[in-house]
Amino acid sequence: MGLVTISDIRAATESIGNAAVRTPLLRFDDGLWLKPESLQPVGAFKIRGAYNALARLPEDVRARGVVAYSSGNHAQAVAYAAKLFGVPAVIVVPDTTPRVKVVATRSHGAEVIQVPMASRETRAAELVVERGATLIPPFDHPDVIAGQGTIGLEVVADLPDVATVLVPVSGGGLISGVATAVKALSPSTRVVGVEPELAGDAAESLRAGTLIRWPAEDRARTVADGLRAEPSELTFEHMRAYVDDIVTVSEEEIGAAVGRLARQARLVVEPSGAVTVAAYLARPSERTVAVLSGGNVDPEVFARYLSA
Amino acid sequence: MGLVTISDIRAATESIGNAAVRTPLLRFDDGLWLKPESLQPVGAFKIRGAYNALARLPEDVRARGVVAYSSGNHAQAVAYAAKLFGVPAVIVVPDTTPRVKVVATRSHGAEVIQVPMASRETRAAELVVERGATLIPPFDHPDVIAGQGTIGLEVVADLPDVATVLVPVSGGGLISGVATAVKALSPSTRVVGVEPELAGDAAESLRAGTLIRWPAEDRARTVADGLRAEPSELTFEHMRAYVDDIVTVSEEEIGAAVGRLARQARLVVEPSGAVTVAAYLARPSERTVAVLSGGNVDPEVFARYLSA
Repeated sequence: MGLVTISDIRAATESIGNAAVRTPLLRFDDGLWLKPESLQPVGAFKIRGAYNALARLPEDVRARGVVAYSSGNHAQAVAYAAKLFGVPAVIVVPDTTPRVKVVATRSHGAEVIQVPMASRETRAAELVVERGATLIPPFDHPDVIAGQGTIGLEVVADLPDVATVLVPVSGGGLISGVATAVKALSPSTRVVGVEPELAGDAAESLRAGTLIRWPAEDRARTVADGLRAEPSELTFEHMRAYVDDIVTVSEEEIGAAVGRLARQARLVVEPSGAVTVAAYLARPSERTVAVLSGGNVDPEVFARYLSA
Repeated sequence: MGLVTISDIRAATESIGNAAVRTPLLRFDDGLWLKPESLQPVGAFKIRGAYNALARLPEDVRARGVVAYSSGNHAQAVAYAAKLFGVPAVIVVPDTTPRVKVVATRSHGAEVIQVPMASRETRAAELVVERGATLIPPFDHPDVIAGQGTIGLEVVADLPDVATVLVPVSGGGLISGVATAVKALSPSTRVVGVEPELAGDAAESLRAGTLIRWPAEDRARTVADGLRAEPSELTFEHMRAYVDDIVTVSEEEIGAAVGRLARQARLVVEPSGAVTVAAYLARPSERTVAVLSGGNVDPEVFARYLSA
C-alpha cells in the first residue's frame, strides 16, 4: 500500500493556499505549545484535507459535485470547500450529530441528510451513483491525509526542536499526515496519538501490530464525538510506519482539559480536540506541541466544562 | 506634542520579535475578519507595548525593575515582559480587578499590590521613588503606543485592501498605535474606535474636538472592565490626527458579541475585547477588521454570555 510522502504534503500546502489559516503555535506553559486548528474557518483541521482533495479533482469531475459522510467536522469542511470552488455538496451525517454542526454545515450551502450512524456510508455511496458526484472520504484517502499533513510542516517550521507532537486519533487521517511530515523533517521528534479510553481501538491496534475492531456502540460512549471512527488499512499503515505510541485519556481528563483551555488559552475547543492537552496534563513533557483538532462544541456541553 | 511615527512602529516590530504572537486574521463572516489579540501569552495586546517599552530602557535602568498600574491586562503584560527580561516587577491594581487577572499577574512572578481605584497612580509613583524602578504607563507613552501599533502593520500586511479597522478605546494607546500604522500604510482605510455607551468619553471628546472628562464612577458602570480608563493628551492627539470616528455599543450588544465569538469563532474574548464585534454586528460593513483586544474574563461572567 503506497504511503503519502512529504512531497505530497508540500504540494498540498501549495494547493490549499489561503483556504486554511496558517495557525500560530501558542505557548501554554513551560513545556507545551498549542496548534489551534479550532481557529480554521470551519472550526477544525478538516478543511485542509477536504480542500486538498477537491483541489486535486479534475475540473469537470469537481463540477458534478461532491458527497461526504462524517461525524460532523468533515461535513462542514467539504461543504465549505465546495462553496469556495462553487460546486454542489451533499452531506450525510449520523442522526446523533450535534445540532451546532448540522446548522453550520447547512450554512455553507450544502444539502444535509441525517441517517442512522450505521447507514451513512451506504447512503453516501448511493448518492454518488444517483448524482454522478465524487465521494470525499473523511480520512481514508491519500489527498485527505496529505492535506492534514500540512499541520506537521507548520509545527516543525515554527518549533524546529520540537520533542513530541500529540495528535488526536479517530479514523487516523490527521495523525497519518502529521506523522509523515514530522518524521520526514525531524526524525527524532516523537509523534504520539491520543484517544479516549472509551474509544481506544487504535491504541490497542498499534500495540497488537494489527487492526483490532471495536463495536461502534462501544466507541460511541465517549463525549469526544469526533473520535468515534476507527482507522482504515491505509491510515493504520501510516501509524505503524511513523507513530511512536498512542495513549488514552479518561472522560474526566478530557472535560478538565476543555476547561483549562478556555481559562488559560482563551480557546473554545471541543472534547475531541482537547484530548491532546489532557494527555499532556496527565504526563507533562518538554518541547511538546498539542494539536487541537477542532472547536465545534454545543454551548451547553462547553458550559459544563468551563469551570472543570 | 510629538506623535509616534511609522518608523517607531517598524522598530517596535523588531524589538518585540517573538515575545508576542504574530496573530492571524480569522474570517468571521462575509465582511468581517478578526484580529485575535486574546491569543497573546498574557491574553491581551498589552504585551506588545509593555515589551517594547522594556526593550527600549537602558539595560542598567531596566535591571532596577519596573512598576505598573493597570486595570489588569497591562499588569500581566508588564509582569510577563519583566519575567522575559529577568527583572523585578511590582504591579499596582485597583481592588475591583477580576480575580483571574490578579492570579495571572502573580503567576508571572510579579509582586501585586491592590489599592482603591483612585489611588493607584499615586501608589505607583511612590513605588518608583522608593525602589528606583521605572514606571511603565499603560498607554500614555510613545514606546507603549508604538508597540501596540505593530497590530496595525500586521492587519494591513494580511489584508491590504482593508476598508475599516475597528479598535476598542479606553486610554487610547491601542487605537493611537493602530491608527498611526494603518493611516501611514493605507490612508483610505477608515480607523474607527469603539467604546461602551457607559464609558463613551472618548467618543464625546472626538466629536467635541477637545478632551471631555467623565467621572471615574460613571466609566466604571460598564461590564467592559478594560475600557474604563480615559485618554491622555498624548493619545487624544493621535486620535484627532488619525481616527475617523468613535462609536459606542450597549451592554447588551457587548454580551451578545461575547457569545457570538465563542460559538462562531471559538474564541474566549473578554467584554472589552468584544466591543468591536458588537459594533460590526450593529452595522455590518465590507472588508472590516475587528481587533479583539483581550480574553481575560472570569469564567462565571463568560458562562453568562455563552448563549447570549
